[in-house]
Amino acid sequence: MTHRGRTSSGLWKITVWDEPSFQGSRREFTAACESTAEHGFSTVRSFKIESGAWAGFEHSGFQGQQFVLERGEYPCWEAWSGSNAYHVPRMCSFRPIACADRRESRLTLFEQENFLGRQGELREDCPSLPALGWGSSAVGSFHVHSGAWVGSQFPGYRGFQYLLESDSQAGRYAHVRDWGSHAQTGLLQSLRRVQQ
Amino acid sequence: MTHRGRTSSGLWKITVWDEPSFQGSRREFTAACESTAEHGFSTVRSFKIESGAWAGFEHSGFQGQQFVLERGEYPCWEAWSGSNAYHVPRMCSFRPIACADRRESRLTLFEQENFLGRQGELREDCPSLPALGWGSSAVGSFHVHSGAWVGSQFPGYRGFQYLLESDSQAGRYAHVRDWGSHAQTGLLQSLRRVQQ
Repeated sequence: MTHRGRTSSGLWKITVWDEPSFQGSRREFTAACESTAEHGFSTVRSFKIESGAWAGFEHSGFQGQQFVLERGEYPCWEAWSGSNAYHVPRMCSFRPIACADRRESRLTLFEQENFLGRQGELREDCPSLPALGWGSSAVGSFHVHSGAWVGSQFPGYRGFQYLLESDSQAGRYAHVRDWGSHAQTGLLQSLRRVQQ
Repeated sequence: MTHRGRTSSGLWKITVWDEPSFQGSRREFTAACESTAEHGFSTVRSFKIESGAWAGFEHSGFQGQQFVLERGEYPCWEAWSGSNAYHVPRMCSFRPIACADRRESRLTLFEQENFLGRQGELREDCPSLPALGWGSSAVGSFHVHSGAWVGSQFPGYRGFQYLLESDSQAGRYAHVRDWGSHAQTGLLQSLRRVQQ
């Protein structure tokens, strides 16, 4: 659990409820939660991100489908999460995104795995890689130089999300399997910075 | 149908299929389609946006839930659209977003309807209005001065989308009902430019 130690500055706060619309049992967290069940929450149905940027996960132990959670209100998990094709009934763990940074974020994307083939660099949000001239609907590998980024399957930041952090595995994501265990393909068409 | 006349410049192209993964019957459009059924498509299950930015709609006649579609591949409508809480089985009409502009986009948001209360101005994408200091999870009204914007219910551009265009009703959206007939509340927590 490398993330617990980073959260002592008070920069992160999430409040969760086990019923929709901020009803039912309530609990605040200012650091990572590896398993909501251990805190008596079998289901988190609504939550508020009060400070910082957080990563939510389908399974405990920060596994499964990933959700980038920024400051704001999430009254209904069902309305927010996933897609009709892949139903994620609950969020079972979450942690701060420690390297999210407002000042500078930079990454290089590569056409092929292992940092090979054609490459491009991003410093700004991009709702459509094809519109920017990236000649494919897929990405082979990433090198995140600074900040935290979120890639999405479809244009406009829709579909599965993949968190890419400069402080995780030295920012090097050599294969599809490095950026999300549920990913079956390299389909990735939008990419933006995570800020907090 | 005020949008048909705008699309003669060849800037817009969408190719649709009636089966997932770009299979089945295929048809190209370079202008608005008011009803896919009139063109023999009872269901659009996959599509590619080859140029321009488009708006897709749940119902024919550009009615119902709105979807902003930017350049790229959409192999599976089910995986892309909506949320688990509000299932939209198909896209029945679509049209170009004529005022989407890469150069300048500017809007003013207001706390209350009819352009009243506290206000803020945006020229850049904003994944979380609360993180930017907007003290509420809702917006009361908008004045779009230039470009096209898409607002979303939740942070990170998730949930229902609402298209806001400078060339529609003079860019003035005085009430929740002006930016989407299915909207029940002013819940709106992220906002970004539509570019093409």
